[in-house]
Amino acid sequence: MKTYLDCFPCFMRQALFAARISTDDVKLQRKVLDRVAEELKKFPLDATPVEMGERIHGIVKKVTGNIDPYREEKRKYNELGMKMLPELRKLVNEADDPLLMAIRIAIAGNIIDFGSLSEFDVGESLKQALSQDFAIFDYEKFKEVLEDAKEIMYIGDNAGEICFDRVLVEVLNNMKKKVYFITREEPVINDITIDDAEFCGLSEVANVMSSGSTAPGTIIKHTTSEFRQLFYEVPMIIAKGQGNYETLSDEKRPIFFLLKVKCPVVAKDIGAKNMDIVLKYNLS
Amino acid sequence: MKTYLDCFPCFMRQALFAARISTDDVKLQRKVLDRVAEELKKFPLDATPVEMGERIHGIVKKVTGNIDPYREEKRKYNELGMKMLPELRKLVNEADDPLLMAIRIAIAGNIIDFGSLSEFDVGESLKQALSQDFAIFDYEKFKEVLEDAKEIMYIGDNAGEICFDRVLVEVLNNMKKKVYFITREEPVINDITIDDAEFCGLSEVANVMSSGSTAPGTIIKHTTSEFRQLFYEVPMIIAKGQGNYETLSDEKRPIFFLLKVKCPVVAKDIGAKNMDIVLKYNLS
Repeated sequence: MKTYLDCFPCFMRQALFAARISTDDVKLQRKVLDRVAEELKKFPLDATPVEMGERIHGIVKKVTGNIDPYREEKRKYNELGMKMLPELRKLVNEADDPLLMAIRIAIAGNIIDFGSLSEFDVGESLKQALSQDFAIFDYEKFKEVLEDAKEIMYIGDNAGEICFDRVLVEVLNNMKKKVYFITREEPVINDITIDDAEFCGLSEVANVMSSGSTAPGTIIKHTTSEFRQLFYEVPMIIAKGQGNYETLSDEKRPIFFLLKVKCPVVAKDIGAKNMDIVLKYNLS
Repeated sequence: MKTYLDCFPCFMRQALFAARISTDDVKLQRKVLDRVAEELKKFPLDATPVEMGERIHGIVKKVTGNIDPYREEKRKYNELGMKMLPELRKLVNEADDPLLMAIRIAIAGNIIDFGSLSEFDVGESLKQALSQDFAIFDYEKFKEVLEDAKEIMYIGDNAGEICFDRVLVEVLNNMKKKVYFITREEPVINDITIDDAEFCGLSEVANVMSSGSTAPGTIIKHTTSEFRQLFYEVPMIIAKGQGNYETLSDEKRPIFFLLKVKCPVVAKDIGAKNMDIVLKYNLS
């Protein structure tokens, strides 16, 4: 997905939010905004918004010296997710269609996103995602591709959300699928790293690996060769959230995007409305 | 009022909105944002947000060549205001307290603001302002200062809104007060110029003059000496809207601010909530 001019005010908003969570020093917060303004002038519109996100959060880290400002928030939502795990599993076990229920749950977890939102209600998101109609629903194609796939790459998104993903990974496990669960390389916003995957027990149900990306998405050219080899080989990829959609929507790979739409620009690009839930196949 | 960092994303939003209303050329819109980003880096936080507004709209005019992009919108709302005039006068005539009713009406008109909002409902704003409680209500002081004032300076704000102001000016006329009605020097957003005052018949009920300010507010150092002489002499000043509040709140003059709060930063500064209505005395 390319960058739209509507993203520019939002880049400033994200930068200010991240600067404030990283430091109380207004002079440093101002310095962050000035550096981001400088980057904005140079930023090519054919790059994805995530690439600007990477620059923004790089600036925040450099200027404030705080390399993981969301650490506490990430732990809080990882703990909340782990606490909810038995309830989420119960929903799957009692569902007429456990696979679809697990997909709905994974999407519900996608509300935990400090990149797009500054506040959210996990319980409310779960309630909604269980009953809400999908704006895009390529579920038949999902089942068709899944049937033939022995190996699945699952590109995760945010802390806390990862426990909701785990429920879907467990369903895939039960179907005898081998899952590679992908994290970011280092902390950026509340995106997951290997540490979060360990904390939430993903390594018990999947091969956990980092994509090498330090951006809040998956910028292919910045990933490791190991990741790319897998990415271009596996017969099925599940990619969670807006950041992965923004960076991977132009890839000609069998990707299923699972997300809750949280900004008007992504909504327009994907063909849905804000707060819609989406299960979209990339090759359809 | 000083500028807060929260204003920075909003400056980009305003710039994009104004650029888009001025030209369909995305390259020029982008150029506007780049120039605004450059200005942001230099902008001192102890200046008022209106001073950045002046720079933004100066850039939009220069880059797009469109010096009055809101011309059509201004005419539309001037015509709507003129059409509503008999209804507004009737509300005043039938009120138990015609002065207070006229103040409520003048504030209702303050919803017509393309600087803070991109859409609004004039009828709904009127309905609300007639019944809504004031968040700040220095009405006793208003009547006290008014009683002794023979001359009143009334600093207007936006096109369309000016017809709502006219109703209050007419009430002041009936009380034998001489009113100086102040406009901006040239078009900026949908703020009024002498032309709008003429169109809406303000010259029939007041001495109409420009402050000399080309900003969407009243930056004292950029006003004419004629305006300043009057500003520092008159015993009572009525100033409409956020732009006038932002630029005049630090002046030690007997100013009554009449406005509808339309942004969280002004809300915090003035001590009210978003969409509250305010009648605030500057010297209390």
